[in-house]
Amino acid sequence: MRMAFVIYDGMTALDFIGAYDPLTRLHTMRLLPGVAWNVCATTATVRDGAGLQFVPDTVGQPLTGYDLVYVPGGFSTRNLVNDAAFVEWIKTAAETPLLASVCTGSLLLGAAGLLKDVRATTHPSAYEDLRPFCREVMDQRIVDEGRIVTGRGVTSAIDLGLYLVEKLAGSQIRQRIQVQMDYPYGIE
Amino acid sequence: MRMAFVIYDGMTALDFIGAYDPLTRLHTMRLLPGVAWNVCATTATVRDGAGLQFVPDTVGQPLTGYDLVYVPGGFSTRNLVNDAAFVEWIKTAAETPLLASVCTGSLLLGAAGLLKDVRATTHPSAYEDLRPFCREVMDQRIVDEGRIVTGRGVTSAIDLGLYLVEKLAGSQIRQRIQVQMDYPYGIE
Repeated sequence: MRMAFVIYDGMTALDFIGAYDPLTRLHTMRLLPGVAWNVCATTATVRDGAGLQFVPDTVGQPLTGYDLVYVPGGFSTRNLVNDAAFVEWIKTAAETPLLASVCTGSLLLGAAGLLKDVRATTHPSAYEDLRPFCREVMDQRIVDEGRIVTGRGVTSAIDLGLYLVEKLAGSQIRQRIQVQMDYPYGIE
Repeated sequence: MRMAFVIYDGMTALDFIGAYDPLTRLHTMRLLPGVAWNVCATTATVRDGAGLQFVPDTVGQPLTGYDLVYVPGGFSTRNLVNDAAFVEWIKTAAETPLLASVCTGSLLLGAAGLLKDVRATTHPSAYEDLRPFCREVMDQRIVDEGRIVTGRGVTSAIDLGLYLVEKLAGSQIRQRIQVQMDYPYGIE
Protein backbone atom coordinates (compact mmCIF):
# COMPACT_ATOMS: atom_id res chain seq x y z
CA MET A 1 0.00 0.00 0.00
CA ARG A 2 1.98 3.02 -1.22
CA MET A 3 0.30 6.39 -0.78
CA ALA A 4 1.30 9.77 -2.19
CA PHE A 5 0.26 12.99 -0.48
CA VAL A 6 0.59 15.89 -2.91
CA ILE A 7 1.53 19.25 -1.36
CA TYR A 8 2.15 22.63 -3.01
CA ASP A 9 2.50 26.33 -2.20
CA GLY A 10 -0.82 27.89 -1.19
CA MET A 11 -2.50 24.64 -0.19
CA THR A 12 -4.73 24.53 2.87
CA ALA A 13 -2.82 22.56 5.50
CA LEU A 14 -5.95 21.09 7.08
CA ASP A 15 -7.03 19.69 3.67
CA PHE A 16 -3.82 17.67 3.74
CA ILE A 17 -3.47 16.82 7.43
CA GLY A 18 -7.16 15.96 7.90
CA ALA A 19 -6.73 12.87 5.70
CA TYR A 20 -3.02 12.28 6.38
CA ASP A 21 -3.80 11.65 10.07
CA PRO A 22 -6.25 8.73 9.70
CA LEU A 23 -4.47 7.23 6.66
CA THR A 24 -1.00 7.19 8.25
CA ARG A 25 -2.47 5.67 11.43
CA LEU A 26 -2.87 2.46 9.39
CA HIS A 27 0.91 2.27 9.86
CA THR A 28 1.61 4.14 13.11
CA MET A 29 -1.09 2.16 14.98
CA ARG A 30 0.20 -1.06 13.28
CA LEU A 31 -3.22 -1.87 11.85
CA LEU A 32 -2.26 -2.76 8.28
CA PRO A 33 1.15 -4.17 7.30
CA GLY A 34 3.11 -2.70 4.39
CA VAL A 35 1.63 0.79 4.43
CA ALA A 36 4.12 3.46 3.34
CA TRP A 37 3.82 6.92 1.85
CA ASN A 38 5.58 9.87 0.30
CA VAL A 39 4.86 13.57 0.70
CA CYS A 40 5.32 14.77 -2.88
CA ALA A 41 5.92 18.26 -4.28
CA THR A 42 7.51 19.99 -7.25
CA THR A 43 9.55 22.29 -4.98
CA ALA A 44 12.05 21.58 -2.18
CA THR A 45 9.89 23.35 0.41
CA VAL A 46 6.21 24.22 0.47
CA ARG A 47 4.28 26.94 2.29
CA ASP A 48 0.58 26.62 2.98
CA GLY A 49 -1.80 29.53 2.37
CA ALA A 50 -1.03 31.01 5.78
CA GLY A 51 2.76 30.66 5.51
CA LEU A 52 3.52 27.40 7.35
CA GLN A 53 6.54 25.65 5.89
CA PHE A 54 6.65 21.93 5.07
CA VAL A 55 9.49 19.84 3.67
CA PRO A 56 8.35 17.16 1.19
CA ASP A 57 10.31 13.90 1.03
CA THR A 58 9.92 13.51 -2.75
CA VAL A 59 10.54 16.44 -5.10
CA GLY A 60 9.82 16.63 -8.81
CA GLN A 61 9.17 12.90 -9.24
CA PRO A 62 6.21 11.56 -11.25
CA LEU A 63 3.20 10.40 -9.24
CA THR A 64 3.46 6.89 -10.64
CA GLY A 65 3.52 3.54 -8.86
CA TYR A 66 1.26 4.57 -5.98
CA ASP A 67 -1.89 2.74 -4.87
CA LEU A 68 -3.45 5.98 -3.65
CA VAL A 69 -2.74 9.60 -4.61
CA TYR A 70 -4.31 12.27 -2.40
CA VAL A 71 -4.60 15.93 -3.46
CA PRO A 72 -5.57 18.71 -1.02
CA GLY A 73 -7.08 22.05 -2.02
CA GLY A 74 -6.14 25.65 -1.41
CA PHE A 75 -6.57 29.15 -2.77
CA SER A 76 -3.63 28.71 -5.16
CA THR A 77 -5.53 26.04 -7.10
CA ARG A 78 -7.29 28.83 -9.03
CA ASN A 79 -3.90 29.71 -10.58
CA LEU A 80 -2.46 26.20 -10.67
CA VAL A 81 -5.20 24.95 -13.02
CA ASN A 82 -3.53 27.23 -15.61
CA ASP A 83 0.04 26.18 -14.72
CA ALA A 84 0.87 23.74 -17.54
CA ALA A 85 3.88 22.20 -15.79
CA PHE A 86 1.98 21.60 -12.55
CA VAL A 87 -1.03 20.14 -14.38
CA GLU A 88 1.31 17.81 -16.32
CA TRP A 89 2.69 16.63 -13.00
CA ILE A 90 -0.79 15.85 -11.65
CA LYS A 91 -1.49 13.97 -14.93
CA THR A 92 1.26 11.50 -14.00
CA ALA A 93 -1.23 10.15 -11.41
CA ALA A 94 -3.67 9.15 -14.18
CA GLU A 95 -3.19 5.38 -13.77
CA THR A 96 -3.44 5.37 -9.94
CA PRO A 97 -5.91 2.73 -8.70
CA LEU A 98 -7.37 5.15 -6.13
CA LEU A 99 -7.35 8.92 -6.61
CA ALA A 100 -8.70 11.24 -3.93
CA SER A 101 -8.98 14.98 -3.43
CA VAL A 102 -10.58 17.29 -0.95
CA CYS A 103 -11.85 20.83 -1.34
CA THR A 104 -10.44 22.59 -4.44
CA GLY A 105 -7.98 19.73 -4.92
CA SER A 106 -10.61 18.42 -7.33
CA LEU A 107 -9.93 21.42 -9.60
CA LEU A 108 -6.38 20.10 -9.98
CA LEU A 109 -7.58 16.58 -10.80
CA GLY A 110 -10.11 18.20 -13.16
CA ALA A 111 -7.54 20.38 -14.95
CA ALA A 112 -5.48 17.22 -15.45
CA GLY A 113 -8.46 15.64 -17.21
CA LEU A 114 -8.92 12.98 -14.55
CA LEU A 115 -12.55 13.74 -13.67
CA LYS A 116 -13.99 13.81 -17.20
CA ASP A 117 -16.49 10.99 -16.81
CA VAL A 118 -17.26 11.11 -13.10
CA ARG A 119 -19.32 12.99 -10.56
CA ALA A 120 -17.25 14.99 -8.08
CA THR A 121 -17.41 17.64 -5.36
CA THR A 122 -15.32 20.55 -4.12
CA HIS A 123 -15.58 23.49 -1.72
CA PRO A 124 -19.09 25.01 -2.13
CA SER A 125 -17.46 28.27 -3.26
CA ALA A 126 -15.91 26.45 -6.24
CA TYR A 127 -18.84 24.49 -7.68
CA GLU A 128 -18.90 26.67 -10.84
CA ASP A 129 -15.13 26.27 -11.29
CA LEU A 130 -15.43 22.48 -11.10
CA ARG A 131 -18.39 22.14 -13.49
CA PRO A 132 -16.38 22.21 -16.79
CA PHE A 133 -14.05 19.49 -15.51
CA CYS A 134 -16.45 16.69 -14.53
CA ARG A 135 -19.70 14.98 -15.45
CA GLU A 136 -21.70 16.39 -12.54
CA VAL A 137 -20.89 18.50 -9.47
CA MET A 138 -22.43 17.05 -6.32
CA ASP A 139 -23.28 18.89 -3.10
CA GLN A 140 -22.20 15.96 -0.91
CA ARG A 141 -19.53 15.66 1.75
CA ILE A 142 -18.00 12.66 -0.05
CA VAL A 143 -18.56 11.53 -3.62
CA ASP A 144 -17.33 7.98 -4.30
CA GLU A 145 -17.07 7.04 -7.96
CA GLY A 146 -15.07 3.89 -7.25
CA ARG A 147 -11.60 4.78 -8.48
CA ILE A 148 -12.06 8.50 -7.76
CA VAL A 149 -13.26 9.82 -4.41
CA THR A 150 -13.67 13.54 -3.75
CA GLY A 151 -14.47 15.44 -0.56
CA ARG A 152 -16.23 18.81 -0.23
CA GLY A 153 -14.74 21.63 1.91
CA VAL A 154 -11.67 21.74 4.16
CA THR A 155 -12.75 19.63 7.17
CA SER A 156 -14.27 17.01 4.85
CA ALA A 157 -10.66 15.81 4.71
CA ILE A 158 -11.15 14.03 8.04
CA ASP A 159 -14.34 12.32 6.91
CA LEU A 160 -12.70 11.45 3.58
CA GLY A 161 -9.58 10.10 5.27
CA LEU A 162 -11.69 7.86 7.50
CA TYR A 163 -13.79 6.83 4.50
CA LEU A 164 -10.64 5.81 2.61
CA VAL A 165 -9.37 3.92 5.67
CA GLU A 166 -12.60 1.91 5.66
CA LYS A 167 -12.34 1.34 1.90
CA LEU A 168 -8.77 0.07 2.29
CA ALA A 169 -8.91 -1.75 5.62
CA GLY A 170 -12.53 -2.32 6.64
CA SER A 171 -14.94 -0.84 9.14
CA GLN A 172 -13.37 -2.30 12.30
CA ILE A 173 -10.02 -0.66 11.63
CA ARG A 174 -11.76 2.58 10.69
CA GLN A 175 -13.58 2.45 14.01
CA ARG A 176 -10.35 1.95 15.99
CA ILE A 177 -8.70 4.89 14.22
CA GLN A 178 -11.75 7.09 14.69
CA VAL A 179 -11.79 6.38 18.44
CA GLN A 180 -8.06 7.15 18.71
CA MET A 181 -8.67 10.42 16.83
CA ASP A 182 -11.45 11.18 19.35
CA TYR A 183 -13.77 11.98 16.43
CA PRO A 184 -17.40 11.64 17.49
CA TYR A 185 -18.82 13.05 14.27
CA GLY A 186 -19.33 11.52 10.88
CA ILE A 187 -21.48 11.38 7.82
CA GLU A 188 -23.12 8.02 8.42
CA MET B 1 -3.09 39.66 18.81
CA ARG B 2 0.12 37.62 18.75
CA MET B 3 -0.23 33.84 18.80
CA ALA B 4 2.43 31.18 19.31
CA PHE B 5 1.94 27.66 17.98
CA VAL B 6 4.35 25.29 19.74
CA ILE B 7 5.61 22.38 17.66
CA TYR B 8 8.06 19.59 18.54
CA ASP B 9 9.29 16.21 17.34
CA GLY B 10 6.68 13.50 17.78
CA MET B 11 3.70 15.83 17.96
CA THR B 12 0.45 14.86 16.23
CA ALA B 13 0.15 17.15 13.21
CA LEU B 14 -3.65 17.26 13.34
CA ASP B 15 -3.51 18.46 16.97
CA PHE B 16 -1.62 21.49 15.67
CA ILE B 17 -3.29 22.10 12.30
CA GLY B 18 -6.84 21.55 13.59
CA ALA B 19 -6.61 24.76 15.63
CA TYR B 20 -4.08 26.57 13.42
CA ASP B 21 -6.60 26.55 10.55
CA PRO B 22 -9.47 28.43 12.24
CA LEU B 23 -7.17 30.72 14.27
CA THR B 24 -5.07 31.86 11.30
CA ARG B 25 -8.24 32.47 9.26
CA LEU B 26 -8.79 35.49 11.54
CA HIS B 27 -5.98 36.98 9.45
CA THR B 28 -6.21 35.20 6.06
CA MET B 29 -9.95 35.93 5.78
CA ARG B 30 -9.29 39.50 6.99
CA LEU B 31 -11.72 39.17 9.88
CA LEU B 32 -9.64 40.66 12.69
CA PRO B 33 -6.91 43.27 12.18
CA GLY B 34 -3.48 42.86 13.74
CA VAL B 35 -3.47 39.08 14.08
CA ALA B 36 0.01 37.58 13.70
CA TRP B 37 1.66 34.38 14.84
CA ASN B 38 4.85 32.39 15.16
CA VAL B 39 5.40 28.67 14.82
CA CYS B 40 7.81 28.01 17.68
CA ALA B 41 10.16 25.12 18.35
CA THR B 42 13.41 24.33 20.13
CA THR B 43 14.89 22.72 17.01
CA ALA B 44 15.42 24.01 13.45
CA THR B 45 13.13 21.38 11.96
CA VAL B 46 10.39 19.25 13.48
CA ARG B 47 8.96 15.88 12.48
CA ASP B 48 5.49 14.81 13.56
CA GLY B 49 4.85 11.32 14.92
CA ALA B 50 4.48 9.91 11.41
CA GLY B 51 7.59 11.60 9.99
CA LEU B 52 6.22 14.73 8.30
CA GLN B 53 8.74 17.56 8.39
CA PHE B 54 7.87 21.13 9.39
CA VAL B 55 10.09 24.21 9.56
CA PRO B 56 9.31 26.53 12.51
CA ASP B 57 9.84 30.26 12.05
CA THR B 58 11.08 30.82 15.62
CA VAL B 59 13.69 28.53 17.17
CA GLY B 60 14.82 28.43 20.78
CA GLN B 61 13.16 31.70 21.77
CA PRO B 62 11.16 32.07 25.01
CA LEU B 63 7.36 31.89 24.68
CA THR B 64 6.96 35.38 26.11
CA GLY B 65 5.01 38.35 24.80
CA TYR B 66 2.23 36.34 23.18
CA ASP B 67 -1.50 36.83 23.75
CA LEU B 68 -2.16 33.15 23.08
CA VAL B 69 0.13 30.13 23.30
CA TYR B 70 -1.18 26.89 21.80
CA VAL B 71 0.35 23.47 22.56
CA PRO B 72 -0.56 20.33 20.57
CA GLY B 73 -0.16 16.77 21.85
CA GLY B 74 1.63 13.70 20.57
CA PHE B 75 3.14 10.41 21.66
CA SER B 76 6.46 12.07 22.49
CA THR B 77 4.82 14.05 25.32
CA ARG B 78 5.22 10.98 27.56
CA ASN B 79 9.01 11.52 27.33
CA LEU B 80 9.00 15.30 27.10
CA VAL B 81 7.37 15.69 30.52
CA ASN B 82 10.70 14.40 31.86
CA ASP B 83 12.87 16.57 29.59
CA ALA B 84 13.93 19.38 31.91
CA ALA B 85 15.07 21.76 29.15
CA PHE B 86 11.85 21.33 27.19
CA VAL B 87 9.68 21.78 30.29
CA GLU B 88 11.65 24.95 31.17
CA TRP B 89 10.87 26.25 27.69
CA ILE B 90 7.12 25.62 28.14
CA LYS B 91 7.35 27.40 31.52
CA THR B 92 8.31 30.60 29.69
CA ALA B 93 4.63 30.75 28.62
CA ALA B 94 3.52 31.06 32.27
CA GLU B 95 2.39 34.70 32.01
CA THR B 96 0.46 34.27 28.73
CA PRO B 97 -3.08 35.75 28.97
CA LEU B 98 -4.55 32.75 27.12
CA LEU B 99 -2.99 29.28 27.22
CA ALA B 100 -4.47 26.41 25.22
CA SER B 101 -3.59 22.79 24.59
CA VAL B 102 -5.20 19.86 22.88
CA CYS B 103 -4.80 16.13 23.51
CA THR B 104 -1.63 15.29 25.46
CA GLY B 105 -0.42 18.86 25.03
CA SER B 106 -1.95 19.36 28.48
CA LEU B 107 0.69 17.00 29.92
CA LEU B 108 3.31 19.52 28.79
CA LEU B 109 1.43 22.44 30.37
CA GLY B 110 1.00 20.27 33.44
CA ALA B 111 4.67 19.29 33.70
CA ALA B 112 5.47 23.02 33.52
CA GLY B 113 3.23 23.58 36.56
CA LEU B 114 0.73 25.67 34.62
CA LEU B 115 -2.37 23.57 35.40
CA LYS B 116 -1.94 23.31 39.18
CA ASP B 117 -5.17 25.01 40.18
CA VAL B 118 -7.43 24.29 37.22
CA ARG B 119 -9.58 21.58 35.74
CA ALA B 120 -8.30 20.25 32.42
CA THR B 121 -8.69 17.49 29.85
CA THR B 122 -6.49 15.41 27.54
CA HIS B 123 -6.74 12.39 25.28
CA PRO B 124 -8.90 9.76 27.08
CA SER B 125 -5.89 7.39 27.06
CA ALA B 126 -3.93 9.92 29.18
CA TYR B 127 -6.39 10.81 31.95
CA GLU B 128 -4.24 9.03 34.56
CA ASP B 129 -1.09 10.79 33.33
CA LEU B 130 -2.76 14.19 33.64
CA ARG B 131 -4.23 13.65 37.12
CA PRO B 132 -1.09 14.60 39.14
CA PHE B 133 -0.73 17.85 37.19
CA CYS B 134 -4.14 19.51 37.65
CA ARG B 135 -6.99 20.04 40.07
CA GLU B 136 -9.42 17.75 38.25
CA VAL B 137 -9.39 15.80 34.99
CA MET B 138 -12.58 16.33 33.00
CA ASP B 139 -14.06 14.04 30.36
CA GLN B 140 -15.21 16.95 28.20
CA ARG B 141 -14.33 17.95 24.64
CA ILE B 142 -13.33 21.43 25.82
CA VAL B 143 -12.58 22.62 29.36
CA ASP B 144 -12.54 26.41 29.70
CA GLU B 145 -11.01 27.70 32.92
CA GLY B 146 -10.81 31.26 31.68
CA ARG B 147 -7.11 31.79 31.12
CA ILE B 148 -6.49 28.10 30.38
CA VAL B 149 -8.49 26.15 27.84
CA THR B 150 -7.80 22.49 27.09
CA GLY B 151 -9.22 20.16 24.45
CA ARG B 152 -9.62 16.36 24.68
CA GLY B 153 -8.35 14.09 21.84
CA VAL B 154 -6.79 14.88 18.45
CA THR B 155 -9.78 16.20 16.45
CA SER B 156 -10.92 18.29 19.42
CA ALA B 157 -8.33 20.69 18.02
CA ILE B 158 -10.85 21.90 15.44
CA ASP B 159 -13.57 22.46 18.03
CA LEU B 160 -11.05 24.13 20.32
CA GLY B 161 -9.75 26.36 17.53
CA LEU B 162 -13.27 27.50 16.70
CA TYR B 163 -13.99 27.96 20.40
CA LEU B 164 -10.93 30.20 20.77
CA VAL B 165 -11.94 32.13 17.64
CA GLU B 166 -15.30 32.87 19.27
CA LYS B 167 -13.61 33.81 22.55
CA LEU B 168 -11.30 36.23 20.71
CA ALA B 169 -13.57 37.59 17.97
CA GLY B 170 -17.19 36.74 18.73
CA SER B 171 -19.77 34.30 17.46
CA GLN B 172 -20.42 35.93 14.07
CA ILE B 173 -16.78 35.65 13.01
CA ARG B 174 -16.65 32.11 14.35
CA GLN B 175 -19.67 31.27 12.22
CA ARG B 176 -18.07 32.72 9.07
CA ILE B 177 -14.89 30.73 9.64
CA GLN B 178 -16.81 27.55 10.40
CA VAL B 179 -18.78 27.88 7.14
CA GLN B 180 -15.56 28.47 5.17
CA MET B 181 -14.07 25.37 6.82
CA ASP B 182 -17.19 23.45 5.77
CA TYR B 183 -17.51 22.14 9.32
CA PRO B 184 -21.09 21.07 10.03
CA TYR B 185 -20.29 19.55 13.42
CA GLY B 186 -19.75 21.09 16.81
CA ILE B 187 -20.23 20.75 20.48
CA GLU B 188 -22.77 23.48 21.05
